[in-house]
Amino acid sequence: MTELRIAIVGFGKIARDQHVGAIAAVPGAMLAAIASRNASLPGLPHFATVEELLDKGPQIDAVSLCTPPQVRRGQAAAALAAGKHVMLEKPPGIGVAELDPLIAMASEAKRTLFATWHSRHAPAVEPAREWLAARRIKSVHINWKEDVRVWHPGQAWIWEPGGLGVFDPGINALSILTRILPRPVFVIAAELAFPANCQSPIAANLTLTDIGGLPITAEFDFRQTGPQSWDILVETDEGRMTLSRGGRIMAVDGKVVADAPDEEYRELYRRFVKLAASGTSDVDLAPLRLVADTFLLGKRNIVEPFVD
Amino acid sequence: MTELRIAIVGFGKIARDQHVGAIAAVPGAMLAAIASRNASLPGLPHFATVEELLDKGPQIDAVSLCTPPQVRRGQAAAALAAGKHVMLEKPPGIGVAELDPLIAMASEAKRTLFATWHSRHAPAVEPAREWLAARRIKSVHINWKEDVRVWHPGQAWIWEPGGLGVFDPGINALSILTRILPRPVFVIAAELAFPANCQSPIAANLTLTDIGGLPITAEFDFRQTGPQSWDILVETDEGRMTLSRGGRIMAVDGKVVADAPDEEYRELYRRFVKLAASGTSDVDLAPLRLVADTFLLGKRNIVEPFVD
Repeated sequence: MTELRIAIVGFGKIARDQHVGAIAAVPGAMLAAIASRNASLPGLPHFATVEELLDKGPQIDAVSLCTPPQVRRGQAAAALAAGKHVMLEKPPGIGVAELDPLIAMASEAKRTLFATWHSRHAPAVEPAREWLAARRIKSVHINWKEDVRVWHPGQAWIWEPGGLGVFDPGINALSILTRILPRPVFVIAAELAFPANCQSPIAANLTLTDIGGLPITAEFDFRQTGPQSWDILVETDEGRMTLSRGGRIMAVDGKVVADAPDEEYRELYRRFVKLAASGTSDVDLAPLRLVADTFLLGKRNIVEPFVD
Repeated sequence: MTELRIAIVGFGKIARDQHVGAIAAVPGAMLAAIASRNASLPGLPHFATVEELLDKGPQIDAVSLCTPPQVRRGQAAAALAAGKHVMLEKPPGIGVAELDPLIAMASEAKRTLFATWHSRHAPAVEPAREWLAARRIKSVHINWKEDVRVWHPGQAWIWEPGGLGVFDPGINALSILTRILPRPVFVIAAELAFPANCQSPIAANLTLTDIGGLPITAEFDFRQTGPQSWDILVETDEGRMTLSRGGRIMAVDGKVVADAPDEEYRELYRRFVKLAASGTSDVDLAPLRLVADTFLLGKRNIVEPFVD
């Protein structure tokens, strides 16, 4: 088996914490270089920009873009133009429409464009999907609250336009929701709390539904201290299913039925290796589209300034 | 030829000013009823709601939804479920995702769902599209500024969440832009001016581009007094094309090459009659998607309160 030689572009917290280890653990994938303005890894070729990497770097087959979403489209276009497969951290862009030309480029070049949603690969997500497919769903509630100071220290880009704010974690919940429910959902109302000094919301309440009128609510909050919440609760005609710890644990009426270790990022790279072998793309824009709709139709409230 | 019996739902300014006359003028279309909480037309059956219309009204084949976008999805679903063809005023919804289930419903029922963009039917739009297709485009500038007090008197829904604010006219420009340019465009930066007392922007500056890096800028403003501006300027390698008065007049280097009377709404109903004859849908979400992306990635500035 030929190994997929991957360069990580953008070497921040998520690249270090997740991507490096996942690439090392997945057969068929190898880390070949890093492009980052600020950071490097001992023993690996290092370049300041993706252009320098593509121009002067070692032979690579693919790039994994872990940069903030604001700069990712240009990097993806450069990498596809150079004949590389591209993996995008979530969210895949700062807008939905910017993905279409990238999808077309990948298709023409027979290269893979893979828009990842790591939370969909949490171990209890597929069991939850299967369990729900056989039952009548009565309501859904998402409770997704974390402490931004713990999980995103110094990540100023999150608060800039296009940085998504609390939707940076919230979109993980929406990526699971759109995977486990049998029908497409859409937002019908929302309230967004913008700190007076920030361009992105720090909290949000969403009301969603589907064509059958299923009541779905979501609470996102970046100001949670103490215990953190990454839970989806689904009431059905055969009991309450809870998907907790970000999709790691599934329980029915309080009884745990699925609980396995986190291999989200390994799963992403396993899938990337497979997709690249055939040059197939996988770009599901549904979660980002829900967030764009939320910004479009949501009520904006100004709340107290946020200081990191 | 059997006539398409159409009921207008929502009988505000645009229904009176445009839809009634257009239906009367188009062969194969006839106005059969009106559903509106507040208004009616002498000699026509009148109902307070779309549900009452569908339940107790005369035989109709289609509804034309001229209600504010916030209530349109539910009305469209009810009409499709009752086997009616549906025409939607622009914008087609308060979010992009809510259209998917309606498209699926229409397809299953073999009924027409027609998301209209009236400005695309301005007489100089197709000539402009053809002219541009044969030339190299160097830059595009949109200047779309009108006096909200003149054109939207008392339309409070415009300022509510989902009401779009200045994008109510601005989306007309975007619907023309996405029709006349040869390649898909996307937003890369935006500034939105929100009056302190409103949930929708009163002005906006957008920067868009396409995969080739074409520079596109747009200025939208609802505070224009004096002469009104509905212009798109396109620099090409063979001169400057201007599309002015909302797509009514096309000129090249100052010389008028297309100028015909406005038949936008007649064209819409001509097309609706044709689509309904075969139960085909026509839903292009590109303009709404650009607006959703603009809200998602745009910088928000608070400006002075707006008083109607």
